Amino acid sequence: MTRFLKGHGTENDFILLPDLADLDPTAEVPLLSAEQVRRLCDRHAGIGGDGVLRVLPVGSATEAENLPTGDARWFMDYRNADGSVSEMCGNGARLFAKYLLEAGLESTSTFDLATRGGLRRVTRSRSGELSVDMGPARLGVESVARIAGAEFAGRQVSMTNPHLVCLTEVTVSALDLSGPPIVDGDLFPDGVNVEFVNLLSDTPAAAQLHVRMRVHERGVGETRSCGTGACATAGQVLAQIGRDSGEVIVDVLGGEVRVTVTPNTTTLSGPAVFVASGDIDPDWWAISE
Amino acid sequence: MTRFLKGHGTENDFILLPDLADLDPTAEVPLLSAEQVRRLCDRHAGIGGDGVLRVLPVGSATEAENLPTGDARWFMDYRNADGSVSEMCGNGARLFAKYLLEAGLESTSTFDLATRGGLRRVTRSRSGELSVDMGPARLGVESVARIAGAEFAGRQVSMTNPHLVCLTEVTVSALDLSGPPIVDGDLFPDGVNVEFVNLLSDTPAAAQLHVRMRVHERGVGETRSCGTGACATAGQVLAQIGRDSGEVIVDVLGGEVRVTVTPNTTTLSGPAVFVASGDIDPDWWAISE
Repeated sequence: MTRFLKGHGTENDFILLPDLADLDPTAEVPLLSAEQVRRLCDRHAGIGGDGVLRVLPVGSATEAENLPTGDARWFMDYRNADGSVSEMCGNGARLFAKYLLEAGLESTSTFDLATRGGLRRVTRSRSGELSVDMGPARLGVESVARIAGAEFAGRQVSMTNPHLVCLTEVTVSALDLSGPPIVDGDLFPDGVNVEFVNLLSDTPAAAQLHVRMRVHERGVGETRSCGTGACATAGQVLAQIGRDSGEVIVDVLGGEVRVTVTPNTTTLSGPAVFVASGDIDPDWWAISE
Repeated sequence: MTRFLKGHGTENDFILLPDLADLDPTAEVPLLSAEQVRRLCDRHAGIGGDGVLRVLPVGSATEAENLPTGDARWFMDYRNADGSVSEMCGNGARLFAKYLLEAGLESTSTFDLATRGGLRRVTRSRSGELSVDMGPARLGVESVARIAGAEFAGRQVSMTNPHLVCLTEVTVSALDLSGPPIVDGDLFPDGVNVEFVNLLSDTPAAAQLHVRMRVHERGVGETRSCGTGACATAGQVLAQIGRDSGEVIVDVLGGEVRVTVTPNTTTLSGPAVFVASGDIDPDWWAISE
């Protein structure tokens, strides 16, 4: 039997595979194939999700041998729905951390996760809110995005993955993001996630800012939420009003996240919700094993 | 704990709720609200599915009191993903029947299901294939569907729900069904499912015909499969070549079904696949109870 959990963070949804049979760090853990990931994430023929989060002890993950693991005990093997390997996912990391805490695999209020994007520190507040250190938002050059002929001024931001954050006066709720925004292909040769952002706060100097964000993710289309997009947005919005730190509430289609920016890093806080858990049907799963 | 199973028939996918705690036919069974159905079927914030199949003993279903139940022991409480109550679903009925057989709630090779669309006879072949008696395809008047200015001649067919079957020489694989086909609103005041069909068989007189079908379902858009659409298509294709009975293999995006037409009724056969089973998270579910 292969156990699974399904859950989401601001409606960015994942299939979590605990692989508890693999707790022996010396055990050979079979790789999860791209085809198996695609089958699991298929929203009609499979379970359905934006990606798969596989829980592996750091010692058992062959891949993790070349990664900095520090004191981390668990490796977050994250895959996109198309089967591709991915570094890191902020909304997924909260769900991953919630599983570790609820399963008793971690019990402290702060611990590190090993990911392909490096070590990521997770913090659980007294109220139970989960935050993930996402690393700094690195601001780049100015650029523009175009939708149906309309031009939106923005700035390139790297969260290790590329973003173009466009703070605009145009009401983002009314934008048609059914097609990809047109961007500078020389600046973004591997594509880019484009964020369209309204500042909702009246007083830009307030301790906590409030913005609304819609995001078009490269290779996917508009999504309900994007953790790195929220962090890139918070960093750029603060910079645009001359600040290098602060707290930003980001409304996304799938809910709300909170980003805390300091000169050194960015921390993403938000919900993590488990919807169901159970077993993958062995006859169905056997086809791809 | 609320148990669930997830599965599909030709990629028309469902959440099945066994409600095994309700096996006492005198028990009060709480109704499943439209809001609960929408939450379950939400593909990002819930489990995800085209609909919910709830298994109820006929005696416990208040609604079933006014339905013909005959010798049927189980009522298929079928809901669409939008929360609306629905009569019947051919692809769902196979999955429902498969559950009853695997759970030992039915054990004979033929049994009846009570549905809002009336009694439906299920047959399991020696090879394990499941067939559902869908009732007759009732042919109506000729009409047309238009896509991007192109006109497709078709015929109105009722399977209790309304269809417009368009047999065409245009390769249906190449059609753009991203928007709804334009139809005669006077003939179809409640909307219509439109099927675009290519005859793949070279010899229309063959015992078994082979067609390819794409379907645009009212209120949904293009779907991977439609059980009543396959039956309507089989009835109309046979009628168009002067036959009132025969067998038709129908290729759909999600796989293949087989329809057997006689002068009195239509029988739909095809796959039923369980992907996973488990428990709905009680904290998550409690919100809507």
